Amino acid sequence: MLDEYGSLAQRALSSYLERESRRSDVYRLAADYPLRKGRSLRASLCMAAARAFGAAAEEAVYSAVSLELMHNAFLVHDDIEDESDERRGGPALHRLHGVPAALNAGDALVVLGLRPLLQNRDVLGARVSFRILEEAERMVRESVEGQALELRWRRENADALTESDYLRMTLKKTCWYTSIYPIRVGALIGTRDGVDLDAFVRFGFFLGTAFQIQDDLLNLHGDHAQYGKELEGDLREGKRTLMLIRLLEAATEAERARALRLLELPRAAKPQTELAWLRDTMLRLDCIDYARAVAHALAGAALGEFPRAFGDALEGRDKRFIESLPYWALERS
Amino acid sequence: MLDEYGSLAQRALSSYLERESRRSDVYRLAADYPLRKGRSLRASLCMAAARAFGAAAEEAVYSAVSLELMHNAFLVHDDIEDESDERRGGPALHRLHGVPAALNAGDALVVLGLRPLLQNRDVLGARVSFRILEEAERMVRESVEGQALELRWRRENADALTESDYLRMTLKKTCWYTSIYPIRVGALIGTRDGVDLDAFVRFGFFLGTAFQIQDDLLNLHGDHAQYGKELEGDLREGKRTLMLIRLLEAATEAERARALRLLELPRAAKPQTELAWLRDTMLRLDCIDYARAVAHALAGAALGEFPRAFGDALEGRDKRFIESLPYWALERS
Repeated sequence: MLDEYGSLAQRALSSYLERESRRSDVYRLAADYPLRKGRSLRASLCMAAARAFGAAAEEAVYSAVSLELMHNAFLVHDDIEDESDERRGGPALHRLHGVPAALNAGDALVVLGLRPLLQNRDVLGARVSFRILEEAERMVRESVEGQALELRWRRENADALTESDYLRMTLKKTCWYTSIYPIRVGALIGTRDGVDLDAFVRFGFFLGTAFQIQDDLLNLHGDHAQYGKELEGDLREGKRTLMLIRLLEAATEAERARALRLLELPRAAKPQTELAWLRDTMLRLDCIDYARAVAHALAGAALGEFPRAFGDALEGRDKRFIESLPYWALERS
Repeated sequence: MLDEYGSLAQRALSSYLERESRRSDVYRLAADYPLRKGRSLRASLCMAAARAFGAAAEEAVYSAVSLELMHNAFLVHDDIEDESDERRGGPALHRLHGVPAALNAGDALVVLGLRPLLQNRDVLGARVSFRILEEAERMVRESVEGQALELRWRRENADALTESDYLRMTLKKTCWYTSIYPIRVGALIGTRDGVDLDAFVRFGFFLGTAFQIQDDLLNLHGDHAQYGKELEGDLREGKRTLMLIRLLEAATEAERARALRLLELPRAAKPQTELAWLRDTMLRLDCIDYARAVAHALAGAALGEFPRAFGDALEGRDKRFIESLPYWALERS
């Protein structure tokens, strides 16, 4: 179903981006990430939720395309902010074109993402389309606030974070745009704004955090070709993953001090030997198993929450697809 | 009237930003530029146009506040892209907080600017509010495309630009958000979407280009305290102003080559003596008088266009205020 809905969204996205790319350089740059092979998880989730609540997949296509564009806007800006080298198997956009052009291309992706939400009116009418815009505003707001938290932790070399801090940051930075918003918008379209959208926040939170922890685990020990960005980039960036937070809790004072000295160095100045030590220490202190266990518990919680959130949804493959996502999130490589 | 409408917009803006600043760091950073003393030209123009077409100024306040926030979002991102040092009499935001936090604060300003456009519905209803959102999408799109043009000229060290290239770039980068969009939205509110908005493009273009050329002239020889950003920053950045384009047309081959060698150097590597030579050459080749003459011609064209654009507007101080802007744009220091 990821393939089926993903290719529906990808076709609409590609023809939109091709049209725009002919108009200005900036859209050609903006089209780069979206056209690199992604799996369109968010677009598929949005379309499946729409169908599970009674709409046709086509009624959610504009919203799904918008979502992919907003997602890519975040990626472009995040890659600049994190000084990332790679994305989806290629160089990061600012490595190809410099920070100024990449930053502006990220802004272009935001405005490209706004257009389909306005076109929604032709399909869904003004009232429902306006509600989707309100949802989009909330989603971008949560994402920006989550990114601000994460940037502050790195800037201040935060040394006393807890699992609860991590979950709160991930709720904002990952879950809103990855799971909560796609489901809310799908349900909004399916029911023509006839369901309480807050019922989806818990399921989306459990699903999105399980997904993010698995993503962080893959950054540590995934397959580079499949993962598509530099492995151990999170360690270099000093990203406060659950594994790192756990390490800082479980380590001796001397280890903590050594880790914090390493983390506060600029990305390029972090010695490879120290990074290897940090990774080994994570393994030795069972931080990876710990994070994996938390991800499993969250996936289980998502499953437990599912009947409450989707009790009124139509039985069928769309509903089953959404129900399968929590464990898929853990098993993907 | 700039004071009167400006302070109306500033009060609404300040209380909004204060409320948000308590919610997250990122809004405190985002609030920095908007709370530095600006003159709120764009907000005032929007409110005056709304009144000139029959609305109360209050009906345009949300749109005016949004406009100021979007404007500041562009400033934050542009300052990063241009490596600017100063803005409105203080250090540029990325000089204070680093590129990552400033970039994210710029994104926060975009989403802060979207909210009031959604709140418009309470005042103007869904139909008119939706139309304003469409106008906003167009405005951001034009701005991003204009910025892309300017960035490309600098990156490629463009050496064969014409006055017509400059005007086209300025139409997109400056005029849409400075004059065309504020007037279109004001007229849209005043007439409840009952007037052809394309009638305002020419007036807004003439006004906005006159304004931008004067801005570029002030960067060369204004008063630093009043201007609020580093003088000669445009020369350091290699910005393709009308004066520079004229210089490259009018110079000898040897002078052209010398200028282009200087322009392609990174900002910090440009020798002060060469910058002084470039500025002297601009004076010697009458580039400044030339640009001033073009700005005057454009202000005159704006006045000539005014009756056609505002023929149906109510007589009174709002209409007179808008009519006075072309020459005000030239006389401000």
